[in-house]
Amino acid sequence: MKILEERIEKEGKIYPGNIVKVGTFLNHQLDTTLLMQMGEEIARLYDGEGVNKILTVESSGIAIAVFAGYKMGVPVVFAKKGETKNIRGDVYSTEIESFTHKRTYNVIVSKEVMGPDDKVLIVDDFLANGKALEGLMDIVKQAGAELAGCAIAIEKGFQGAGDRLRNKGVRVESLALIDEMTDDSVKFRR
Amino acid sequence: MKILEERIEKEGKIYPGNIVKVGTFLNHQLDTTLLMQMGEEIARLYDGEGVNKILTVESSGIAIAVFAGYKMGVPVVFAKKGETKNIRGDVYSTEIESFTHKRTYNVIVSKEVMGPDDKVLIVDDFLANGKALEGLMDIVKQAGAELAGCAIAIEKGFQGAGDRLRNKGVRVESLALIDEMTDDSVKFRR
Repeated sequence: MKILEERIEKEGKIYPGNIVKVGTFLNHQLDTTLLMQMGEEIARLYDGEGVNKILTVESSGIAIAVFAGYKMGVPVVFAKKGETKNIRGDVYSTEIESFTHKRTYNVIVSKEVMGPDDKVLIVDDFLANGKALEGLMDIVKQAGAELAGCAIAIEKGFQGAGDRLRNKGVRVESLALIDEMTDDSVKFRR
Repeated sequence: MKILEERIEKEGKIYPGNIVKVGTFLNHQLDTTLLMQMGEEIARLYDGEGVNKILTVESSGIAIAVFAGYKMGVPVVFAKKGETKNIRGDVYSTEIESFTHKRTYNVIVSKEVMGPDDKVLIVDDFLANGKALEGLMDIVKQAGAELAGCAIAIEKGFQGAGDRLRNKGVRVESLALIDEMTDDSVKFRR
């Protein structure tokens, strides 16, 4: 997605450890106009696939997910990290290891909001080592729901997780796919 | 806001400790159509006030904030809880005690995304003891920015924090304001 690639080139900052910081428009400050365009693009990519629910994980996937959900006319469920007093009763739960934060989170989804009748699109802001997607796919499986695929804002293609999932037959659509990263530049897959 | 009050009456669940659970439409599963209507209402309430930025705190304020931001044509900044490797350099920081989770979080906003030129609207999902709003107002003050006011999805009026802020001259708009809560019902302020 050209406008997203241009924003990454213009405002993204690269830090050691293959971290791309996009905090001025995507995951700290949120450019709501750009995010709506990203939501529209995700809706276009998955049009006609029968998606009736979007699944993401807090926090930075939520904004993209809700714009996609709005354009698709479906609700969004965000998996919660750790325990919370406001989710009672039965939950699906799984572990996700964060690439950025180098720690493992327990994430949960209430059984009340996902089940066998759902066809689920997973949405997230970054695809790095794939652990978040794998965790969310595990939740979809536990719910007995069907997975339509995944939609990602920025995939770090050089880490290989996206292509590993594609090779397993999972549909993974990334709005910007970075194939190479140096200390001061990124190269997108065409 | 009538449609929000009706959803709370229909789907909200009351738990001991004055907790209203709205996880089927507002803070675990998100009804994206309802949230866009709430964003429109917030935009209407603050129309003409010169707001150029919205501030919220992760995670459950994000969805409402981004729809309001989209309708107002302004970006959203979400304060992050705890330290994160993707926010470097200078930050504004404050402490927020969570009513629901009975713990205190350090929250931060990068100096890169807020400053003296900003006129800020604070948006959040719940107003209970007011600690989140006070923390976010402290961030706005640290940034040297101007506060336009606050917009809340659900205010628990009987806890008094909203009226205390109003009495201090802060504009606080709540889309649903609960004045009384029993074990099985809520009464809204008209």
